[in-house]
Amino acid sequence: MALGKSVNVAVVGVTGAVGQEFLTVLAERNFPIKNLRVMASQRSAGKRITYCGKEYIVEDLANADPKGIDIALFSAGGSRSKEFAPKFASAGCIVVDNSSAFRMDPEVPLVVPEVNPSAIKIRPKGIIANPNCSTIIAVVPLWPLHKRAKVKRFIVSTYQAVSGAGAKAIYELENQTKEVLEGKKASPNIFPHPIAFNLFSHNSKIGDDGYNEEETKMRKETHKIFGDSTIRISATCARVPVFRSHAESINADFEMKISPEEAREILSKAPGVKVVDDREKNYFPMPLETSGQDLVFAGRFRRDSSSDNGLAFFISGDQLRKGAATNAVQIAELLLEE
Amino acid sequence: MALGKSVNVAVVGVTGAVGQEFLTVLAERNFPIKNLRVMASQRSAGKRITYCGKEYIVEDLANADPKGIDIALFSAGGSRSKEFAPKFASAGCIVVDNSSAFRMDPEVPLVVPEVNPSAIKIRPKGIIANPNCSTIIAVVPLWPLHKRAKVKRFIVSTYQAVSGAGAKAIYELENQTKEVLEGKKASPNIFPHPIAFNLFSHNSKIGDDGYNEEETKMRKETHKIFGDSTIRISATCARVPVFRSHAESINADFEMKISPEEAREILSKAPGVKVVDDREKNYFPMPLETSGQDLVFAGRFRRDSSSDNGLAFFISGDQLRKGAATNAVQIAELLLEE
Repeated sequence: MALGKSVNVAVVGVTGAVGQEFLTVLAERNFPIKNLRVMASQRSAGKRITYCGKEYIVEDLANADPKGIDIALFSAGGSRSKEFAPKFASAGCIVVDNSSAFRMDPEVPLVVPEVNPSAIKIRPKGIIANPNCSTIIAVVPLWPLHKRAKVKRFIVSTYQAVSGAGAKAIYELENQTKEVLEGKKASPNIFPHPIAFNLFSHNSKIGDDGYNEEETKMRKETHKIFGDSTIRISATCARVPVFRSHAESINADFEMKISPEEAREILSKAPGVKVVDDREKNYFPMPLETSGQDLVFAGRFRRDSSSDNGLAFFISGDQLRKGAATNAVQIAELLLEE
Repeated sequence: MALGKSVNVAVVGVTGAVGQEFLTVLAERNFPIKNLRVMASQRSAGKRITYCGKEYIVEDLANADPKGIDIALFSAGGSRSKEFAPKFASAGCIVVDNSSAFRMDPEVPLVVPEVNPSAIKIRPKGIIANPNCSTIIAVVPLWPLHKRAKVKRFIVSTYQAVSGAGAKAIYELENQTKEVLEGKKASPNIFPHPIAFNLFSHNSKIGDDGYNEEETKMRKETHKIFGDSTIRISATCARVPVFRSHAESINADFEMKISPEEAREILSKAPGVKVVDDREKNYFPMPLETSGQDLVFAGRFRRDSSSDNGLAFFISGDQLRKGAATNAVQIAELLLEE
């Protein structure tokens, strides 16, 4: 591809929460699209989707011919990615896949453009993986600190919005909250437990080591993105009754000394980060303010009182934007520069 | 006092969220009350309060004569405690104070009955302090693990309910949530930021070290309660849109090896703790289930993947009950045994 040249783009899984966000972000960033094609499962085939004032008919992914597509942005779930991403790639298109299907595949680069942009170049399968949302939000501010002082260990506890679980989870929080305010009993459906005015451990499968899949992703994906599997990581992931944007509390131990002032200074110049750190006004990153934003907000920088070379800080980022769609579109933008 | 003998009790700050909980807990536990007196600020004086089917008139604290009171349970704010607790104590009554006014006073014991019950015996000022809610909830399950393997360092991130900020904060979450669901803009009043479908760093003053007061309390009070100021502690405290019960994510490093199985076994027999730890069903401590409970629920025990002798776990407890009223009434029960 060449910079300035328009390309043929397919959005796969266009009717989902991330699929919709793909379209919003592509339009916002004036992504140079020659022909757009939108695809989803059979159930959604035939629906009409509007992009930049023009209507598009959703194609059935199972019957779609990928010929002529330059870049396909996939967010249609792991099993569909496993089946269709290789088919699309062998037809000559480059797949940017938002599912977890290929993330740990050694032949598939796992890319956060602010961290490891050059990793996109080696993609023997024609597939580039977009990391997990909580991972992306953590590594964008961690990376500049890691480059400066080398992170040895970090502990993260997440406060995750429901929209990470899709559009139905958003309705569930809204409807259940109404029910509870009317004095009714919450009736969980998408989530295993009531989410209205409650919180619970992330609803993904627990492994033999006691960590759930979301936590394991944060550890393994950070190792792959940073190219350093010696970093010791422990994550605790929880769902909170917030519609959109995750928050994360991070305690990081570094090899070299790094002061909170220096961390603030580094991150105030770092790509993809906005420092929100006003102690006087008690004003720090909040999911309400990061919703719809591409930047990861970072603040509450302080020397970790439990460590000699440690920093504690708090971040928030929109998991549908930077945690998914924006990151994928940024990867597509890197492809345009090739 | 002597076990089995009824005593004269005063509840000070009876109209507040914790004051109301004092009455509930005293009644539930059949606390042997000879005469009950209820007190509050002038604004609430003259109101009627029902306890065990009998009506009581709220006395104006400023004009109340403490003579004859055996035990006074205070939860009327720090400045009122500072003024009136010493007056009550010099009239011969023992004050159990829920405010932060005396917690770090070396002449005032800071007591969690499951941890340091004998500390109540040395009380030269006649005042015993009830710890901060987040601290109590953390130390109840930490203490048995500390006794077994000696905790060297722990990192905690909290998910704190609004009721810790009083009854008005509960209405604020309810009303603001309704407003947001009706498409209106959230209008914060008690809290500095919108709480409906949002979360933010704990709304207490930030010190020079960047830690807010709630976080500093967790560190300093744990040192005092455990009688060990060598433990390195870092807390991050956040408010979440939950009515009642705090949750906390804890990563603890120990001097000796302790397995998750052993931790689970120890805590399943520990006073004040209920183990809720079903990996198969993804069922762990949740604020909705601990609300109205006296026990601290603990689960998600796993080997900390970032540490050699570390454990990660997740807890939840009702901050109005065990985090305030229940703990104070338990202290009063210890006094009955003297």
